[in-house]
Amino acid sequence: MQRGSLIKEGKAKSLYETDEPGLIWVEYMDQATALNGKRKHHIAGKGVVNNKIDTILFNYLISEGIKTDYVETLSDTVQINKSVKIIPLEVIVRNYASGSLQKKFNLPYLQKLNQTVISYCYKSDELDDPVINASEALGLGFIQPGDSERIQELTLQINDLLIERFAQANLQLVDFKLEFGKLPNGEIILADEISPDNCRLVDLTTKESLDKDVFRKSTGDLVTVYEEVLKRLEQSEEKAHV
Amino acid sequence: MQRGSLIKEGKAKSLYETDEPGLIWVEYMDQATALNGKRKHHIAGKGVVNNKIDTILFNYLISEGIKTDYVETLSDTVQINKSVKIIPLEVIVRNYASGSLQKKFNLPYLQKLNQTVISYCYKSDELDDPVINASEALGLGFIQPGDSERIQELTLQINDLLIERFAQANLQLVDFKLEFGKLPNGEIILADEISPDNCRLVDLTTKESLDKDVFRKSTGDLVTVYEEVLKRLEQSEEKAHV
Repeated sequence: MQRGSLIKEGKAKSLYETDEPGLIWVEYMDQATALNGKRKHHIAGKGVVNNKIDTILFNYLISEGIKTDYVETLSDTVQINKSVKIIPLEVIVRNYASGSLQKKFNLPYLQKLNQTVISYCYKSDELDDPVINASEALGLGFIQPGDSERIQELTLQINDLLIERFAQANLQLVDFKLEFGKLPNGEIILADEISPDNCRLVDLTTKESLDKDVFRKSTGDLVTVYEEVLKRLEQSEEKAHV
Repeated sequence: MQRGSLIKEGKAKSLYETDEPGLIWVEYMDQATALNGKRKHHIAGKGVVNNKIDTILFNYLISEGIKTDYVETLSDTVQINKSVKIIPLEVIVRNYASGSLQKKFNLPYLQKLNQTVISYCYKSDELDDPVINASEALGLGFIQPGDSERIQELTLQINDLLIERFAQANLQLVDFKLEFGKLPNGEIILADEISPDNCRLVDLTTKESLDKDVFRKSTGDLVTVYEEVLKRLEQSEEKAHV
């Protein structure tokens, strides 16, 4: 497969066309951003580790019956994905209180929520990704009738699967962000990336952070922490296959 | 009926116990607030006009089959309402872009929305009534399973009825706020107040504001404007009964 022209340079990945219709070339970059891109750093090795973690997690979800845009991993930093029309919502999934929800409602850190909480932000650099609800997204024409119900259904399935997979690696899935896309036939499938860039993970036992919070709060070396997550996922994968 | 001890002094109404179990005494006050109570003014005559408008609208909704906490109007400033357990959500209903939604998504003023938009704020003076969605309200234990579905169903019915009633008075219902309460048997019914304090109304023809925006923006005399709304509702009521 050949890399074609650049479609979009994102915060942590660059997307290119390929010579095959319906497929895109995704390059994981050595870049980390915080505060919606306002703080940006080159971090050697981050692209490789995120690509590996994402590859493990998407292959796991696919093996459990979840439809995704993942096709194959070509190299340490390159994946081939299906081309989808991204639904312009960041889907934020929370199992425990942390981040903006914890702050907004003045909750104890890692308080267990009565049920999994799903929140949405509208993907718009210009508007700074504002919080939105499904009714607002429909009323403003950002999604179509039925989209949010399907997104919610898929999100809860994916959440259950990821909680279990991370627990095998002795990691607690506090919260994370998903994006979904539509295939040409209208089917909604999981898209984008799942990595410590957009998951809040803590050690199940010690509650130590193993995610981008070490970058946001400058409390540790990001790649070291991401490599620890990768190591745990790889080791638990081997165990699962014995 | 006798007025009992004070239960709560709100922004525009004071609630008292009565000598009859399950009923409360509601006094409409001559007070207007803006910016969630940070700006407060005594405005002579406002309590009377709001009580009259609310009485017309609640009687209308009841006649159309909506269950509410309204029992009777005792005097120019006093109503008797059923005592309900208020669900701690402000239910904001929008038919056209205005206010915070217009600002957040940079929309043209009064742009027609693709469908009626329902948003929620969590009623908390301490937290400054933060925006919340149904999933968050459930996860944080502020509402019970099924509550938001029932609230949405009732809200859309009430919206359709109010759009029609205000149109008879040559008024366009841009957006408004509702609150709901639970009876001891768990049934959710409409509560609180519907008046120009919590509705955005514009003249159907001229698009001139006829609501609390004249106070928020200091562009006119609030009671004069509210009295115009009352006059139009009374005149259209007489017409409807001919």
